[in-house]
Parts: sequence; C-alpha cells; structure tokens
Amino acid sequence: MSIYKLHCFGQSGNAYKVALYLNCSGLEWEPVFVDFMNGATRDLAWRAMNNPMGEVPVLEVDGRRLTQSGAILSYLAEETGKFAPVKPEDKYEALRWVLFDNHKFSSYFATHRFLNAFPPDAPDPAVMAFLKSRATAAFKVVDKHLDDKHFMLGENPTIADFSLAGYMFYPVEETGIDVKAEFPCVGAWIDRMSKLPGWKDPYDLMPGERIPPRDRSS
Amino acid sequence: MSIYKLHCFGQSGNAYKVALYLNCSGLEWEPVFVDFMNGATRDLAWRAMNNPMGEVPVLEVDGRRLTQSGAILSYLAEETGKFAPVKPEDKYEALRWVLFDNHKFSSYFATHRFLNAFPPDAPDPAVMAFLKSRATAAFKVVDKHLDDKHFMLGENPTIADFSLAGYMFYPVEETGIDVKAEFPCVGAWIDRMSKLPGWKDPYDLMPGERIPPRDRSS
Repeated sequence: MSIYKLHCFGQSGNAYKVALYLNCSGLEWEPVFVDFMNGATRDLAWRAMNNPMGEVPVLEVDGRRLTQSGAILSYLAEETGKFAPVKPEDKYEALRWVLFDNHKFSSYFATHRFLNAFPPDAPDPAVMAFLKSRATAAFKVVDKHLDDKHFMLGENPTIADFSLAGYMFYPVEETGIDVKAEFPCVGAWIDRMSKLPGWKDPYDLMPGERIPPRDRSS
Repeated sequence: MSIYKLHCFGQSGNAYKVALYLNCSGLEWEPVFVDFMNGATRDLAWRAMNNPMGEVPVLEVDGRRLTQSGAILSYLAEETGKFAPVKPEDKYEALRWVLFDNHKFSSYFATHRFLNAFPPDAPDPAVMAFLKSRATAAFKVVDKHLDDKHFMLGENPTIADFSLAGYMFYPVEETGIDVKAEFPCVGAWIDRMSKLPGWKDPYDLMPGERIPPRDRSS
C-alpha cells in the first residue's frame, strides 16, 4: 500500500501540481480517481472528507486528509525535504510564489482554460478577454523573473515550480493561450520542467479520460 | 524606530490583512504610504524592492523585505507566535484557508470591488456578473464553515481570519456586494473580528485619502 494516496483526475492542473511533485520526488504514491466531470466533488461525501472547499486534490497520508495544492506541497516539502527550499529565507520566497500562483498565475489561466474547453456553451467574450488579460499580466511577471534563472528560486526546482507548472502542460486547444510562444522564458522553464526525472504528461500521470475540448466550429 | 514597516495604503485590503494583524497583535509597527492610485507600484524602484510581482503590501523587518500578505502573515505568526495556529496540524489548516482566500475569497471579491468603485469607466456587466458569482461561491463555503465556529480554526482567531477579513470592512458602495446581509455566519464573524482589541477600519489604520467610489448616477 502506498504511503500517499492522491485523489485526482487528468483534467485537474491543481491535482497535477501534487501528482508531478510526488512522481518527480520518487515517493510511493497512487492516484485515486475523482469523477469531477460527473459531479463527484458536488457530493456531500466529498466535502465531508475534511474538504469544506469541495476541491481537488485531496492527499491522504497517515490517516490525515490534506487539501489545497499549495498547503499539500508545503507539507510534503517539510516532511520529505524533496524540492524544499534550502536556505531558511527561501521558505517564504517559495511560499510567496505559491501564493502568487494561486492568486494570479494558475487561477486566471485555469479558469480561462476551463471556460474555453469544457462547458457546453461558448463562454462570454468579455469574460474571456478579462481572464486572458489577467493571466497575461501574471505570465509577464514570471517571464521576467525567469529571465536570469533556471527555476523560480534559482538553480534548482522547488515546490514553487511545481505549483506554477500545474496548468503548463495542457494543450493549447484546451487553454486557448499559447504560453510557450508568447512568453519565451516561461517556455524555456516549461522545457526544463519536462526534463525532470519522473515527469509525465497530466493525462498520463492521473486517471480519467482525456475529454476533447468542445468543438468551436459547430 | 518601529521593528516593522508596512508599505501600504488605505484602499488595499491585502495590505490591511497585515496592518490589522500587526495592530491586533500589539506589535510595534508603522505604515509607509504607497501612492498606488498615482502609479507608485508601476515604478521600477518599487519592483526592485524584492518585489517582482509589483504588489502591495511590502513588510520591512531586519533589513529584509517580504511580500505577499499570506507569506507575511505566515512569517509573522512563526516569528512572534501571535495568532499562530496552536496544534501542529493546524499550521496547514491555516495555510489552506490563506490559500483559499488568495485563490477564491478575497481575490474575486477584491477585483469586483476594484472594478465597481475605482476605474473611470463603468465595468463590463458580464465580467461583473462572473466575478460576483465566483465571489458568492467562495462566500458560501466560508459561511457554511463558520456555522459552528467563532473563527476559521475554532475558538480563537488565527492568521487565516486576518487573511479572509482583508476586504470585509470596506463599504458596500465600494464592494457592490452586501456580504453581511447575504451571508449571516460571515456577518457574525465580521462582527467578532471588529471587536478584537486593536481593530480599526482600513481607512483609519492605513494612510491615504479615502477615494469616493465613481459616481454611477452620472
């Protein structure tokens, strides 16, 4: 039995942040499929799993259940030392990028992707333009930051990189924004992340069918 | 000279999270005015202050500069013990609410308020409806969570409460959402927060003029 059980599904970039961390860390883990697209997370049993926010992922370890990818990554780095910030002051440096990721980087981009690819109805253009402008502003900040660094905190990847990378490997036809083409330093960092031992595509690392994005030509 | 210098301004709820924490903790601090409304944070010198995100607040302490309210609150709780989670497992419990706040609670509400009150042009109604629905979903989660608790982690306030409370004391004519009327458990918690020794209104606690929201009748 694995030490870590991760409740996740292929489409969830927030789950992928933790799945990729666990895989690249060489930790013993197994995925547990969450049928999000069929409403599993709206189920009361899901929220009762110490998960009032109703969110994915949930990490089970030692009889505890942890939620919020940023809290899970902080916990795992502290417990295992894998991809943990080395210098004491870097702990808050990593945390502030994890917070920036949740506030502005992953969040607007993930919402843009979700509305772009998954609901049956086409999204409102004004909302999409708003989300794109917010995501772009956040990408600019990270692109500039990565101009003279291999990873967010310098030479070595930390949990901050795993958090920010959560939605970077989904195809452009889902996300609707060509990040690699528009942000070259982010693009080079994405390539570096994809070369870490243990790296896998989100749909290969987590269970659940790949759902084709809604056909916009119809 | 105060130990803590907080770069902030009255309109910033993210700065208020830290200002209120410092004041209620009885820590020696002083505000440093950031003229955000006149573009101070777009200045290169501002970003050079160890602040690539260009954000407010910045905390100066012992020659260090910390940014991101959630990272600052975590740092202060760890350094001073004030409003720190008591049980070891509560550290990640507080952190996940701080992350939820940054991702979904403060963030959509703050953006709704900003667009509602400050730019010269009226905002796009579809964008405002989107932001309101997202903020409302987050408020529902917290309202339910607070149904049987005085504060987010139970009997006593922690940094999680200061994070979530960041935008709760701005007037409805700015925010455009009547939180106290619509979410009774959140409303009761707001009252409890306002009774903490050291509590002050954001515009009394931080420098800068109160800017009247754009007159929508014109």
